[in-house]
Amino acid sequence: MEKRTVEMTLLLDFYGELLTEKQREYMELYYSEDFSLAEIAGLGGVTRQGVRDALQRAESALLEFEAKTGLLQRFSEVSKTAGEIKNSLRIIENSAKTEETAPLFEKIYESLDTLT
Amino acid sequence: MEKRTVEMTLLLDFYGELLTEKQREYMELYYSEDFSLAEIAGLGGVTRQGVRDALQRAESALLEFEAKTGLLQRFSEVSKTAGEIKNSLRIIENSAKTEETAPLFEKIYESLDTLT
Repeated sequence: MEKRTVEMTLLLDFYGELLTEKQREYMELYYSEDFSLAEIAGLGGVTRQGVRDALQRAESALLEFEAKTGLLQRFSEVSKTAGEIKNSLRIIENSAKTEETAPLFEKIYESLDTLT
Repeated sequence: MEKRTVEMTLLLDFYGELLTEKQREYMELYYSEDFSLAEIAGLGGVTRQGVRDALQRAESALLEFEAKTGLLQRFSEVSKTAGEIKNSLRIIENSAKTEETAPLFEKIYESLDTLT
């Protein structure tokens, strides 16, 4: 079973609460805590194959939520746009930073950081 | 049945694809096309009460998706932040608009508009 950690961690952040409690728990142990299938099986009193099946159902569900709603993709675009704005702003700042504008540049950079 | 058009239209945009096809169809007729319960019932060969029940289940499901994931709330914050950035940028622009920076300001405003 291939670990798709980056993708699954993002999907869990977005849609984790839509999974069943058991699915979410196994996914968090496997992806966030880096437990092995056998270790999770040991904790839960289930077989290694049972854990693998639950994880595969959870992954399919997360991928389906994203395929249907596209919300993670929308947020990735927000993040990309914030980065582009930051680049343009840095160029403006080079020629336009004054005592008056400096705090405004700071405020904008802080706001942009909340978007990425 | 109280129409909660603004809220439900936003929720449908985000989570509509997670509803059943029938729920989504009734919600779109009721909220986007402004059909009455009786008109939807006439189209679908169901009772007015049947339509009302389906709409209420759909609304509960949409509200539950949002309660669990909070993604619409996250996007509302992006939109609010983009507005705040625009306000700060306008003040900077007043004192820092030159031939060189003008196209960069334009580019940032356009990017911000995609976030709201």
